[in-house]
Amino acid sequence: MKINKNYLNLKENYLFLTISNKVKEYKKENPKKKLINLGIGDVTLPLPKAVIKAMHKATDEMSNKTTFRGYGTERGYTFLRDTIVDYYNKKNVFLNNEEVFISDGAKSDLGNILDIFSKDNKVLIPDPVYPVYVDTNVMDGREIIYVNNNIENNFLSMPDQNLKCDIIYMCSPNNPTGNVYNKDELKIWIEYAKENRAILLFDSAYEGFIQEKYLPSSIYQIEGAKECAIEFGSLSKTAGFTGVRCGYTIIPHEISYNNISLNDLWLRRQTTKFNGVSYITQRGAEAVFTEDGLKQTKENISYYMKNAKIISDVLTKLDIWHTGGENSPYIWFKCPKNMNSWIFFDYLLKNANVIGTPGAGFGSNGKNFFRFSAFCDEESVVEALNKIKNIKIDA
Amino acid sequence: MKINKNYLNLKENYLFLTISNKVKEYKKENPKKKLINLGIGDVTLPLPKAVIKAMHKATDEMSNKTTFRGYGTERGYTFLRDTIVDYYNKKNVFLNNEEVFISDGAKSDLGNILDIFSKDNKVLIPDPVYPVYVDTNVMDGREIIYVNNNIENNFLSMPDQNLKCDIIYMCSPNNPTGNVYNKDELKIWIEYAKENRAILLFDSAYEGFIQEKYLPSSIYQIEGAKECAIEFGSLSKTAGFTGVRCGYTIIPHEISYNNISLNDLWLRRQTTKFNGVSYITQRGAEAVFTEDGLKQTKENISYYMKNAKIISDVLTKLDIWHTGGENSPYIWFKCPKNMNSWIFFDYLLKNANVIGTPGAGFGSNGKNFFRFSAFCDEESVVEALNKIKNIKIDA
Repeated sequence: MKINKNYLNLKENYLFLTISNKVKEYKKENPKKKLINLGIGDVTLPLPKAVIKAMHKATDEMSNKTTFRGYGTERGYTFLRDTIVDYYNKKNVFLNNEEVFISDGAKSDLGNILDIFSKDNKVLIPDPVYPVYVDTNVMDGREIIYVNNNIENNFLSMPDQNLKCDIIYMCSPNNPTGNVYNKDELKIWIEYAKENRAILLFDSAYEGFIQEKYLPSSIYQIEGAKECAIEFGSLSKTAGFTGVRCGYTIIPHEISYNNISLNDLWLRRQTTKFNGVSYITQRGAEAVFTEDGLKQTKENISYYMKNAKIISDVLTKLDIWHTGGENSPYIWFKCPKNMNSWIFFDYLLKNANVIGTPGAGFGSNGKNFFRFSAFCDEESVVEALNKIKNIKIDA
Repeated sequence: MKINKNYLNLKENYLFLTISNKVKEYKKENPKKKLINLGIGDVTLPLPKAVIKAMHKATDEMSNKTTFRGYGTERGYTFLRDTIVDYYNKKNVFLNNEEVFISDGAKSDLGNILDIFSKDNKVLIPDPVYPVYVDTNVMDGREIIYVNNNIENNFLSMPDQNLKCDIIYMCSPNNPTGNVYNKDELKIWIEYAKENRAILLFDSAYEGFIQEKYLPSSIYQIEGAKECAIEFGSLSKTAGFTGVRCGYTIIPHEISYNNISLNDLWLRRQTTKFNGVSYITQRGAEAVFTEDGLKQTKENISYYMKNAKIISDVLTKLDIWHTGGENSPYIWFKCPKNMNSWIFFDYLLKNANVIGTPGAGFGSNGKNFFRFSAFCDEESVVEALNKIKNIKIDA
């Protein structure tokens, strides 16, 4: 038996392991120091009450022969797909419920979608980036072209018309930079995708954090997107589903290559290699979009956004270049004194007892940058930022 | 953008669609006839009470900030992996909990495991077979060698020493035939796999239905299996989890090719393209293996096995060749008068108002065979078999 040799080309991702080892070592040497973690990319608030209620009810249904549900339906239950269609209607995006596929999270679908694409395609990926985009393509042996995101383009690169590609990754609001493309910028990307006959994979996992209404929270708010873009949604960060696992993928019927519909291909892929999401989880996800659910979700997001503002305000005061945090739970900033991000990690840990995420973990353009996350307690954020102010890490 | 052209080589699987259309048409023409479905491959009894209780408790934990759980751990929660290790200990199989990966069901993992294997491998697949084994390999463009399962070998083929292959599929208890390999037979397959340096993919989704203790319920009960076999387990049929989604995949540390551990490769695949199973589901799965859970699960299985016996007994009385049903919820039988399985489907629907599954849907060797399932009510089974007795479909 021969293994898939492309796996040997994967770079070991030591980011979180290295962080964890450094923290362990520091704790061992300084057992009495209290550390504050601003490096976590996971939610900290519990599930909204509306979700809990719906999941209890669904669990009870599963205990009774007359209401028990076995295998779900292709694409996911209609009640949830219809709910998502309604959610999009409010964004002025009009979908058919057959264009919505329920998933166990955006990460699975972002990886698995590659099954339906040839290995010969050229892939355009921004740097810095969520490492999953890179690794999943390396596993398949696809050629990757990196696009530089940097201070000059405010970490929101625009298409290079001389570059030809077939698959384009976009994440907006972005992980790790927290930046959001506006409608005009997305329009240019869509035109570029259409000219290249490329498919645009749009990761909207953080759309719920967008506060400014003029910013697009779905690629389909831009004309032409339905012909060239797949959107990956998630309830992980917006509704606290990281431990419950539910997302959705939208493939408009309009997208086809040589008269082959991507919606049809994906349906075939999913009915062959996937068996749907728990009925209980799907009922919980449905509850996110009820009046109560949306209200509770919004309250949680506001809590995190307040943390983000506390972080941004201090960085502004310290005159440190930063972006994100206004429509995203992530704040991305330049390490003071042009420090390497790993050196700054150590400096921050030692001098302020604060843990963050070195930008180097997201690509070479992140090597002098750092990510803070708003997923934590307000008291901890205030305490952490006070400490940071005191160590005078001004640029 | 170029699509994965291997998808164009997939045969459309019209089995369940054709059945559904035929049934609809019959109902339209005969609105007053009551039909009984013995074709369903899905459980009908509700979840065990122990599972319901555990899931309610876990849901409550998710509603409280101090007990809330976000992202799970790599491979799945230790509490569940340890529980599965204990379950295997009782079968005299000794595993390390790092050899167990929690999945959202055997179907996903059986499909996704192919990611870590080269497309150049030759695949050995029995016919008839669970169609997922075939389709997932066609999607990757692998060469498939079919092995004939038929009456001559009691639908349990043994290795042909002249055939070379790299990946071997086995399902025991089998879907669709319900047959089970004994230990001596599995030993020969393991030796064959080792001689070929092949990997054996062992689907044990129906292991919970094995009644005769001398039969192996895990491939690892056979010497040498840990060096060449991956086992795919599922709670779908044994504990009624078809709508809840939880299974497990076992990759022993011993399995390596050119010094590359398959356990390492799979971990890398899963941490890149998967984000684990709901915490609530994992607590439910843990409860399956408690004293109460095992007792309740066994009661449900006994209920289905009683149905299976009713079916088998009538087929025996009618002198119809059949197999399965003794250690499996499926009964596989030869269509009377050597009828084609689709013709028999129509005959049965019209004359006995009973729905079953034509063997042709599982491969060419199934074209004169038929599958009945024990996943239904006892009263319905009795009624259906009485009708079948009366239409005198003896061979």
